[in-house]
Amino acid sequence: MTATAVAPLRIGVIGVGRIGRMHAELIAHQVPGAALGAVYDAHEPSARSVSANLGVPAAGTAQEMFGDSELDAVAICSSSDTHVELLVAAADAGKAVFCEKPVSLDLGEVDRALGAIEAAGVPFQIGFNRRFDPAHASVREAVASGAVGEPHLVRISSRDPDPPPLDYVKSSGGLFLDMMIHDFDMARFVTGSDVVEVFARGALRIEPSFAEAGDIDTALVTLVHADGCLTAIDNSRRAAYGYDQRVEVFGSLGMAVSENPQAHTGAVVSADGVRRPPNPYFFLERYLPSYVREWQAFVEAVKGGATPPVSIPDARAPLVIGLAAGRSLREGRPVRIEEVQAA
Amino acid sequence: MTATAVAPLRIGVIGVGRIGRMHAELIAHQVPGAALGAVYDAHEPSARSVSANLGVPAAGTAQEMFGDSELDAVAICSSSDTHVELLVAAADAGKAVFCEKPVSLDLGEVDRALGAIEAAGVPFQIGFNRRFDPAHASVREAVASGAVGEPHLVRISSRDPDPPPLDYVKSSGGLFLDMMIHDFDMARFVTGSDVVEVFARGALRIEPSFAEAGDIDTALVTLVHADGCLTAIDNSRRAAYGYDQRVEVFGSLGMAVSENPQAHTGAVVSADGVRRPPNPYFFLERYLPSYVREWQAFVEAVKGGATPPVSIPDARAPLVIGLAAGRSLREGRPVRIEEVQAA
Amino acid sequence: MTATAVAPLRIGVIGVGRIGRMHAELIAHQVPGAALGAVYDAHEPSARSVSANLGVPAAGTAQEMFGDSELDAVAICSSSDTHVELLVAAADAGKAVFCEKPVSLDLGEVDRALGAIEAAGVPFQIGFNRRFDPAHASVREAVASGAVGEPHLVRISSRDPDPPPLDYVKSSGGLFLDMMIHDFDMARFVTGSDVVEVFARGALRIEPSFAEAGDIDTALVTLVHADGCLTAIDNSRRAAYGYDQRVEVFGSLGMAVSENPQAHTGAVVSADGVRRPPNPYFFLERYLPSYVREWQAFVEAVKGGATPPVSIPDARAPLVIGLAAGRSLREGRPVRIEEVQAA
Amino acid sequence: MTATAVAPLRIGVIGVGRIGRMHAELIAHQVPGAALGAVYDAHEPSARSVSANLGVPAAGTAQEMFGDSELDAVAICSSSDTHVELLVAAADAGKAVFCEKPVSLDLGEVDRALGAIEAAGVPFQIGFNRRFDPAHASVREAVASGAVGEPHLVRISSRDPDPPPLDYVKSSGGLFLDMMIHDFDMARFVTGSDVVEVFARGALRIEPSFAEAGDIDTALVTLVHADGCLTAIDNSRRAAYGYDQRVEVFGSLGMAVSENPQAHTGAVVSADGVRRPPNPYFFLERYLPSYVREWQAFVEAVKGGATPPVSIPDARAPLVIGLAAGRSLREGRPVRIEEVQAA
Repeated sequence: MTATAVAPLRIGVIGVGRIGRMHAELIAHQVPGAALGAVYDAHEPSARSVSANLGVPAAGTAQEMFGDSELDAVAICSSSDTHVELLVAAADAGKAVFCEKPVSLDLGEVDRALGAIEAAGVPFQIGFNRRFDPAHASVREAVASGAVGEPHLVRISSRDPDPPPLDYVKSSGGLFLDMMIHDFDMARFVTGSDVVEVFARGALRIEPSFAEAGDIDTALVTLVHADGCLTAIDNSRRAAYGYDQRVEVFGSLGMAVSENPQAHTGAVVSADGVRRPPNPYFFLERYLPSYVREWQAFVEAVKGGATPPVSIPDARAPLVIGLAAGRSLREGRPVRIEEVQAA
Repeated sequence: MTATAVAPLRIGVIGVGRIGRMHAELIAHQVPGAALGAVYDAHEPSARSVSANLGVPAAGTAQEMFGDSELDAVAICSSSDTHVELLVAAADAGKAVFCEKPVSLDLGEVDRALGAIEAAGVPFQIGFNRRFDPAHASVREAVASGAVGEPHLVRISSRDPDPPPLDYVKSSGGLFLDMMIHDFDMARFVTGSDVVEVFARGALRIEPSFAEAGDIDTALVTLVHADGCLTAIDNSRRAAYGYDQRVEVFGSLGMAVSENPQAHTGAVVSADGVRRPPNPYFFLERYLPSYVREWQAFVEAVKGGATPPVSIPDARAPLVIGLAAGRSLREGRPVRIEEVQAA
Repeated sequence: MTATAVAPLRIGVIGVGRIGRMHAELIAHQVPGAALGAVYDAHEPSARSVSANLGVPAAGTAQEMFGDSELDAVAICSSSDTHVELLVAAADAGKAVFCEKPVSLDLGEVDRALGAIEAAGVPFQIGFNRRFDPAHASVREAVASGAVGEPHLVRISSRDPDPPPLDYVKSSGGLFLDMMIHDFDMARFVTGSDVVEVFARGALRIEPSFAEAGDIDTALVTLVHADGCLTAIDNSRRAAYGYDQRVEVFGSLGMAVSENPQAHTGAVVSADGVRRPPNPYFFLERYLPSYVREWQAFVEAVKGGATPPVSIPDARAPLVIGLAAGRSLREGRPVRIEEVQAA
Repeated sequence: MTATAVAPLRIGVIGVGRIGRMHAELIAHQVPGAALGAVYDAHEPSARSVSANLGVPAAGTAQEMFGDSELDAVAICSSSDTHVELLVAAADAGKAVFCEKPVSLDLGEVDRALGAIEAAGVPFQIGFNRRFDPAHASVREAVASGAVGEPHLVRISSRDPDPPPLDYVKSSGGLFLDMMIHDFDMARFVTGSDVVEVFARGALRIEPSFAEAGDIDTALVTLVHADGCLTAIDNSRRAAYGYDQRVEVFGSLGMAVSENPQAHTGAVVSADGVRRPPNPYFFLERYLPSYVREWQAFVEAVKGGATPPVSIPDARAPLVIGLAAGRSLREGRPVRIEEVQAA
């Protein structure tokens, strides 16, 4: 093995808010073969704080990072509306690029960004971290190995502990593009089959103020897959018992499920029955191992010259499903995926 | 307490095939306050065999039972196409009546039978036994007590271990009226809210010969309830791992679930992980306690002069939902309940 | 198959208090190939009540049953102090015999009864019903099949929901012979290895009045088996959460466990965590299926001319272990089994 | 809050083998309010490697660290036979000190070290990390809060995935002092009651070569507590299914348990039953959160001027119980704790 082979992949992180800061810390401390090269944030104090804590330079502009020949890759973790320009710039600079979801809420813009990436041939991975959760991944493996046979029915429940603020919701693209987009990805991932039709029903049950944003907080969606599998996805913005993320694939030979971890494995048994603790509160507690594994997969792919495991088609398809879900909700009818593709 | 008060309720069972025989045995041996008075079956050897085993007379005709002043009640367990005439006859005879589901596959006929029952004022209970399953009942209790708050989302999975024979399917009314009708009842039961809209998708994945009957073997249905709750029901005619019956109500304060019992509580833990036994095979194994409790409720209501707990509206509504589901499947659109009511 | 082959095994039940009445009902209704022939109880009203309910004759004396040529077998369910004489009489009469545990609290008397049985060559089964519980049986099967390898460590917990009355305790032989005797049997059953040494510690923590009977209500016992396996058994006369019966065998290749069933499979999940119902209350609720299977095994063995599965050595060995446990408690030291055998 | 109050507690780590390196990394990255000040290892390359990775100086001698006024505390993670001298030196230097278990295998030496610590009045914490595991801690909390009532019976199982090398075993003090010492601590922790008597049985079932070291690999121990509670502890050096660590306290009002976490929450359900993954492999996977919480407790106590939560008596008592267990095994009798104390 040459010196080059063992050199760490040097990654710069653009945007160090809550999620970007977490990525920076993971890259710095917990991802073998990776090194944090620099950080940047439009909000300078955030960049300075992370820079000081992790002992890496804070770039003055994002562009500075693209020009830095010591950086092998960039992680785009800034606000969604900046992703397209940054992806195009990364492609131009020839950097491997990891991007938090979504690429954009606008399909034309998504295609512009992904087109630039494709043309440049730079390694690209989109941040659907749940694919790397060991339990969800075990469901996919059970399907891929044939252990559950042909998938017939899928159930996905995804419920947050608390709704985001109204201001966030207003620019989020709505529940289907902000929250259920992870579940659309999960449905494609675990079945290995694309979606051809969407039927959505939604309601405002938790946070009436979301009406101002024209959004819903509760939804139930039916997907029809190309192979005939039927998927039900439900979402809620508030589960009183904490973050709830479950996936189930039922097929001709059996069923694979991923259930919620509990905060710990203690229980108290009394005349009132058995009491166990609630779920871990939210995604940082539940999905931390998935983020580490997500980075391991990216680093391994880039270093090995392979296409990263969640790449261009996976970045686009869930957005299309989400747009179809929105149309279904507005028009009160099932919507074919090609209706949106054509748009 | 007078002698009258402690006299058992004498029940005659009409139809002693698999399910009727089970009812007869339960009434004979396991339902306090009830006594088996007589049995009848159009297939004489069946009647004779049960009569001999349980030590009660076999009637020569169903009419003979209605005329028997020693019988307080009848249980109608014969084939579905005989239910309406028997219900009308029971009403005329002034007998309390328990009837296996469905009353009929024809809504007009259902209304004729239920109208006769109502006019006569005889106690009536329809055989939705799952309401009496202790786990499903605990879900309803959690909703009724307010423990889960307002219901927002319901998930019901109902999967049989093996498909019935094609001949049965041909006269069954199809998956929605034969199998999912139990789940439509469950959705109304656990939420306490009527259904206003149905969207159905179905597929033939297991038993291609069902195409001859114009039937499906796999389905996913969305229900919208009057109170805004959204329910997803999935059905399969074959679960490789045995009978699968789960209900979940998610609401503003939490969630109530009923899960599958396992055949026993043993487990083997090895380097391959933890292995537990599969589910009990089918409904006789799973739901026996619910049938006993169903009879206890009937006996208690009739003796106490109360309306039995699953009565006229509960006998009609699931059929209407099933008819709407069938239309939704054929027409590829959500169907409002009143579209079927008006028919 | 000849008529003889299909004739039911006719069984008479001697002693129809709580446990005997249950046996009589099971034989009458739930054991294929068996028929209840007659019942007897020294307390005449008990016999008359069961006789009337189940439609069989009530014998005037136990001896009458031994002389009844229509009875193939007797079930001895009367009080423990009557067992030896009844066993000897059954042996003399050439009846197959089922006997509730214990044969006697006196080892000499046990040997006299078992000697008579052996000499007469009549089929004999002792009522260690837990061996027939599907979960405990699955533990034994896992050991017998080699799935857990060589047994190294066994854990057995056995805790009643409430202590018996002091009067019962006074003639019960004490916790080791009345309650833990089932666990001594279980230790032999699941490991397939005899016990060679016992060390016992006990305490009075629940019911101080048991001091009058010189008894304890809480105990922890170490067994050393002939093959080197080490077993820990704990007993309590009161578990606030209901009947608790768990067995675990740990071996060179893994572990087999049987856990408690829950009253039902419902759960409520809220901000306080997950709440499930407590255990079924006591042995009649928990072990009913084991009693049915126990009778099936007896009937099958007697009809097939085989030795019943829990026979003479299994009736004796747990008593010896219990006597050794008592001596260990009194003398504060480990006691070898042969010390008691020699006595 | 002054600048002093928010300054991190600067900790030097002595000994950076497997466990010391983990402590150094946790202090450097995951313990709020702590900073890694320096590292030392008698094996210089180990020290250099950790120093380079974590960006802190490597001291040339342990003494250099005691003299370093910038260090507030030291963590003693070197081999057990060096602990006593290092503890005495830390006490002399007035450093707060965290020490991995055991202090020493020799009770006189333990008393010399703890005496020096006590005389100097420096904060001291012993590394019984399992007390900080959230599940085990929940058991203690359930006892302390009164939720389980008075403790009557405790079960602790502790089984490693694989035995250590013979060379390690030879200097380890044997199973009771090397492995079960954690469980002796756990028994005291969860009950809140000291141990007064020990009875031990052990066997060599896994690794015959341990006979050379006079050691066992399988053991079952009975503890009698001062308050009358009875504890059973079993240990095995090899569990085929991975690290197994369970605690159960049964009391007058109920039971508190901590069970094993599973590697993930996925499961596959088929005609063969339900299959879940095995346990996480070993203590670094299972107990990482407990080590983080252990450090948080130490840092908080030292900064707040409080006595750390697992201090002098907790460092001594489990060693005494372990010595009593060894004597019990050799002499084949229960041993009172004071027999060892007096030695």
